Amino acid sequence: MTEKKSLLQWELSIADHLPGNSIDCVIFGYKNQELQLLLLHWKHHDTWSLPGGFIGINEDMDEAANRILLERTGLDSVFLNQFYTFGGTKRSKMNEAAYTKRMEFLTKSKIYSSKTMEWLTKRFITTGYFALVDHEKTTPKPDFLSDKCDWIALHSLPELLMDHGEIIQKALEHLRVRLNYLPIGFSLLPKKFTMQDLQKLYEAILQRPLERSNFQRKMLKLDILTRHEKQMTGAANKAPFLYSFNKERYELLLRKGIGFSF
Amino acid sequence: MTEKKSLLQWELSIADHLPGNSIDCVIFGYKNQELQLLLLHWKHHDTWSLPGGFIGINEDMDEAANRILLERTGLDSVFLNQFYTFGGTKRSKMNEAAYTKRMEFLTKSKIYSSKTMEWLTKRFITTGYFALVDHEKTTPKPDFLSDKCDWIALHSLPELLMDHGEIIQKALEHLRVRLNYLPIGFSLLPKKFTMQDLQKLYEAILQRPLERSNFQRKMLKLDILTRHEKQMTGAANKAPFLYSFNKERYELLLRKGIGFSF
Repeated sequence: MTEKKSLLQWELSIADHLPGNSIDCVIFGYKNQELQLLLLHWKHHDTWSLPGGFIGINEDMDEAANRILLERTGLDSVFLNQFYTFGGTKRSKMNEAAYTKRMEFLTKSKIYSSKTMEWLTKRFITTGYFALVDHEKTTPKPDFLSDKCDWIALHSLPELLMDHGEIIQKALEHLRVRLNYLPIGFSLLPKKFTMQDLQKLYEAILQRPLERSNFQRKMLKLDILTRHEKQMTGAANKAPFLYSFNKERYELLLRKGIGFSF
Repeated sequence: MTEKKSLLQWELSIADHLPGNSIDCVIFGYKNQELQLLLLHWKHHDTWSLPGGFIGINEDMDEAANRILLERTGLDSVFLNQFYTFGGTKRSKMNEAAYTKRMEFLTKSKIYSSKTMEWLTKRFITTGYFALVDHEKTTPKPDFLSDKCDWIALHSLPELLMDHGEIIQKALEHLRVRLNYLPIGFSLLPKKFTMQDLQKLYEAILQRPLERSNFQRKMLKLDILTRHEKQMTGAANKAPFLYSFNKERYELLLRKGIGFSF
């Protein structure tokens, strides 16, 4: 009973939702010096997908995105950013085998009525939202359609449902552009970190090496870091300083932009 | 007969379009050192709106955006960029008087059947596309629902239908951010222009003054300009150089980013 309660319910009444519109959430975390993505693994067949869902008829799209993320993964209070809307006619034809398997499973399992299945198999336009979250502060839980809700490293992504792979690539592009005009890292790094930690994060997002002294100079120039004691792990003279973000200044730059790019 | 032919037709068969999804186009031009917007003025009642329309059931959203712009304004071969999707529940409640007037006109005029009117008055999620076009190379034409299709200066925008004012503001924000990582101006300026012309364009988009020597230094550093003869209008020693864009280098930076921001 306790276990049953912990499973998240994803109810679907088609009359209460806008037809043909969905939302998909690309949730980035950062672990082992690599970007990670929060994905759902479907019960009964081996398919991974982004957490997604539908928009209530009386619900703003931004509200729907937050509700969907909560219902499907248990994550709450995540700041979601809309980044792109995918309106191609061939979205469900990508990785068609997985899509067909999913639809067959849903039909056979009789989770939904045939009318709902008809609604679900129509063409959908989906709007992508992304977020950067501290994976240590989150305890993702799968919903009743999934058996796993896991962080998967960017370099080892499985094949994904429909165009979800493309949606992730677009979110990454968006994140890289964003790096050039907004500060980044607050929700991805521990409270205290070294300059190298910060550089590794930028490198993980840009997927290319950055020059150390140039990176440090630009970062310090932003004036968003507070310097603390040295991190004592090896020889004292080689120990790097620890930094934390100056939250006030960081948030100012989130509003005003950083004024330079990489 | 000739005149009739020149009017653009905007046909609407609801069975051939996705319900609840629309597209709105924010078309920027540049004239008199000011950004201009291409707007439609509705026949029979004094309301302005963005050129917009619906998505065919077998049509990619990007294709639909191009078709809509052509059908409603006569503009072809415009490179449209998707920038944001507006999914609030209260979209048609903004400037509700204008919205009500439009719906009343459409009902009374019996242009559309009552079934189509029912379809039209449901909640719509709209995706915004923007473009920068050379207003001298375009001859916008109103469609059969409009009596004017005009360039209106940004500082003197009329009240607009629904949330179209908000959509324009969002497009502007997007354009300003874009300025920081991509070159801009190719389609907005004449073939040859002075550094001051270019600076005025940037100032019109950012809506703030920029420092002359700093602007010039950054622009020349981009290496996208070819210098030509001086513009002979006053004293020769004060005459400014004319420049043109180096198209090859400009397009390279469109793909790679400019690597600094303002």
